[in-house]
Amino acid sequence: MSIGSATRLFGILGDPVAVVRSPAWWNALFARIGRDAAFVPLQVSAADLPRAWAGLTAIGNVDGLVLTMPHKQAVLPLLDAVGPSARLTGAVNTARRLPDGRWEGDMFDGEGFVAGLRARGIAPEGRRVLQKGCGGAGRAIAFALARAGVASLALEDAVPGRAAALAAEVAAAFPAVATAGAPDLLVNATPLGLAPGDPPPFDLAALSPAVAVADVIPNPEVTPLIAAARAAGCATATGRDMFEGQAILAAAYFGIAA
Amino acid sequence: MSIGSATRLFGILGDPVAVVRSPAWWNALFARIGRDAAFVPLQVSAADLPRAWAGLTAIGNVDGLVLTMPHKQAVLPLLDAVGPSARLTGAVNTARRLPDGRWEGDMFDGEGFVAGLRARGIAPEGRRVLQKGCGGAGRAIAFALARAGVASLALEDAVPGRAAALAAEVAAAFPAVATAGAPDLLVNATPLGLAPGDPPPFDLAALSPAVAVADVIPNPEVTPLIAAARAAGCATATGRDMFEGQAILAAAYFGIAA
Repeated sequence: MSIGSATRLFGILGDPVAVVRSPAWWNALFARIGRDAAFVPLQVSAADLPRAWAGLTAIGNVDGLVLTMPHKQAVLPLLDAVGPSARLTGAVNTARRLPDGRWEGDMFDGEGFVAGLRARGIAPEGRRVLQKGCGGAGRAIAFALARAGVASLALEDAVPGRAAALAAEVAAAFPAVATAGAPDLLVNATPLGLAPGDPPPFDLAALSPAVAVADVIPNPEVTPLIAAARAAGCATATGRDMFEGQAILAAAYFGIAA
Repeated sequence: MSIGSATRLFGILGDPVAVVRSPAWWNALFARIGRDAAFVPLQVSAADLPRAWAGLTAIGNVDGLVLTMPHKQAVLPLLDAVGPSARLTGAVNTARRLPDGRWEGDMFDGEGFVAGLRARGIAPEGRRVLQKGCGGAGRAIAFALARAGVASLALEDAVPGRAAALAAEVAAAFPAVATAGAPDLLVNATPLGLAPGDPPPFDLAALSPAVAVADVIPNPEVTPLIAAARAAGCATATGRDMFEGQAILAAAYFGIAA
């Protein structure tokens, strides 16, 4: 890649930002398609988001911005418009400058997770899902799985009341989805697996080839859960698959075919 | 070059920014010295400077910013501290984040012009200078030539009163510099030569090898004035020499050996 004075800019805001994978993925994409654009990391604290957002959106060659922790909810009131997944989940991970100069955001984490499943041959339609973790990523994934047509969606979370509250929201938006059933798709949307020595989010002894397993953790890509699932003959989708799924959707949102 | 999530950022703010040469120069430097840094163009209008500045300085991995038209004077009140050349000229072209988080700026256009002269073997000491153009670049150059020890400095400008006002400021700061004398260094600090068909800023028929000629116009690098001067056997320094001179000084200001 090379950056000249006419290069268009994209970036990701996060704290910490130095752990994300987006710049490498996006800049490889721009190089592959020969686009004069660059994607930069933007280290922005929660307290500084309003000031940084106002400044970045005042820069005429900044065309799109991606948001990660801790900004996905906080950016909503700073946007001029939000799309349907953002309204449903209360969070935004991608924002773009519209032709009239306004900024519009939407949330692609959940749809990206579903795209990652499909990329690994795991069709969500008719699945009986057991999902652990109902935080930011979990919310997005639950709505996207319901929208994709799973048969049932059972939610669990370590925080009392959180799973039930999300289940009620999902049921209101997608009444056809049941809330229980012997699972054939296990989804880890908790942080378990990020740190060495974390306990597994599911009972590894119960894994069988009839069950598919998906994890949101991007690093390590192969968590102990994914490793055990593969050893048991399960189809798997990793946090990396989810990352690529949402990145491809975000690129399309920016008008870029990835 | 490659941009990852830990890449440090530098940029240039201007309007229009798509004409500047800085991104190519800086990114080639970063590649050559193996520094994980990127230098990006930032299209910012005069009206948007305060908002963009507040936002950019809130981004933790932005380490330095360069300013070009129309921001060199307007940025002064936005800075926490300014250096000696900025105080003298009332303008800033380079700003850096200090270790305590404050932002400090200084002006390297004039010193860069002098460095460009030296790079072409044109020592300024003892020269009798005739300089045309007393706008932003001209102000910086006049102070830098006086500081470098020219014998005399005659200033001209198409705007009535502007040359006399600048001459008085230079005389106050550098009383040893005379204001007239048969010139042996001609300096074009006007825009003449930017556009095809511009009249030459000096009488080309009067050029001789005893006179050195310097131009601030970076593009075309060889203006009609520079071409005529070379044909007449004059030593010359171009706008590109000035650009590289100030860029090397700005890099040193950022703590980067260019």
